Amino acid sequence: MNTGTDHIIKSYDTELSRLTAEIVRMGELSVKQLEAAIDVVERRDERAAQRVVDNDDTIDQMEHDISHDVVRLLALRAPMAGDLRNVFAALRTAADIERIGDYAANVAKRSIPLSMVAPVQPARGLEHLARLAATGVREVLAAYQERDAERAHAVWKNDTVLDEAYTGYFRQLLTYMMEDPRNITPCTHLLFMAKNIERIGDHATNIAENVWFQVTGEPLQSQRRKLDQTSSADFSGLAGSGDKPARP
Amino acid sequence: MNTGTDHIIKSYDTELSRLTAEIVRMGELSVKQLEAAIDVVERRDERAAQRVVDNDDTIDQMEHDISHDVVRLLALRAPMAGDLRNVFAALRTAADIERIGDYAANVAKRSIPLSMVAPVQPARGLEHLARLAATGVREVLAAYQERDAERAHAVWKNDTVLDEAYTGYFRQLLTYMMEDPRNITPCTHLLFMAKNIERIGDHATNIAENVWFQVTGEPLQSQRRKLDQTSSADFSGLAGSGDKPARP
Repeated sequence: MNTGTDHIIKSYDTELSRLTAEIVRMGELSVKQLEAAIDVVERRDERAAQRVVDNDDTIDQMEHDISHDVVRLLALRAPMAGDLRNVFAALRTAADIERIGDYAANVAKRSIPLSMVAPVQPARGLEHLARLAATGVREVLAAYQERDAERAHAVWKNDTVLDEAYTGYFRQLLTYMMEDPRNITPCTHLLFMAKNIERIGDHATNIAENVWFQVTGEPLQSQRRKLDQTSSADFSGLAGSGDKPARP
Repeated sequence: MNTGTDHIIKSYDTELSRLTAEIVRMGELSVKQLEAAIDVVERRDERAAQRVVDNDDTIDQMEHDISHDVVRLLALRAPMAGDLRNVFAALRTAADIERIGDYAANVAKRSIPLSMVAPVQPARGLEHLARLAATGVREVLAAYQERDAERAHAVWKNDTVLDEAYTGYFRQLLTYMMEDPRNITPCTHLLFMAKNIERIGDHATNIAENVWFQVTGEPLQSQRRKLDQTSSADFSGLAGSGDKPARP
């Protein structure tokens, strides 16, 4: 009977390793999608943008298959309490990566109408945000693969850099819109694209929380509350109509 | 031994019923959050807005507890293949509701800077979108509770109404921004708030897909591709600079 149990435990571990590898592969695909999305924004290439949008189906399907595998693994193997953290982290992380893929596809989708209007200067600012986000996702995938809580924590703390860059870019876009009404439509797309990238950073921090919980058994999220400053700050000063100071 | 199995099956069913009830309760809370968010936008009540933002923690915690319960249920009871669909639907639905709660909290959060500037006329249009979204979420929760695939399908099809209302509202906001630069800041917040509500509709359709799959064993999502028309349409005509026609 002991060999039977060993066999079950071993195949459970094998399954979990396979799942982890599949999740990391899915994560790498999502980063490539983000990089491809930014590339099509710069090249103003509609067809390539559509390919990025279509590729998102692959990520969605991977997430679907992974969730099914996780549920089946749980049902068949009945893993021990300690292992449940791994299973839980796998489910959550796959869901976060799926969202990252969605946001990358959204950036590509918005690049299509953006390519139809005259190029606007602030479109370049998007690349900087995307690079920060891509680095965060790559780092947290490495942390997930290596079960490295400290490395995950570093990604989690570092998301403030992306948040600040996003807030600065948001302000910049508003000033362009106020300067010239013809900038309003393209800058509106850029606002949403920037927001998508900022959300990718949030999902990288979610994955960092998953890794932290998986490794330590303790929650990480209580230590810092995420804030998109543009959603609570008052930019009315920029409109020349502000009688209240901008909130910190 | 047979009574033992019966006991396990019965307690599994009891657990699943308890989970379903908890998910529906969580869903109702998310709809109330959306309604409260719209209410604070109209009343321009910063404190009440902050309460809505804070309440989102309750929904997050519920989703966290539900996922843990599902994973534990799976690990302890090893349900049969057919039951896995119920478990899968529970996990997915709880995650979708958590997102609905997030979007409702975001609407409330953005109402705070909005209340600091002069009231803008289009703020009223948000209520119509929110009502459509709230109805969709309520309907799909009922479908989930009753395992009613047809009712879920109706919600799924009906999301186009919200999508069209959102597209119209988006266009309207752009025109306000072009008319007067002082509208740009408040209308940017309204754009994001409207987008949040449109996304709530998407999550209601996701839940409809979960219910459909749970009841029929077949996927629903292949039948219709979701589209936010504002992300692929070209509104450059509105800016008076468009030399290309708006895409359908």
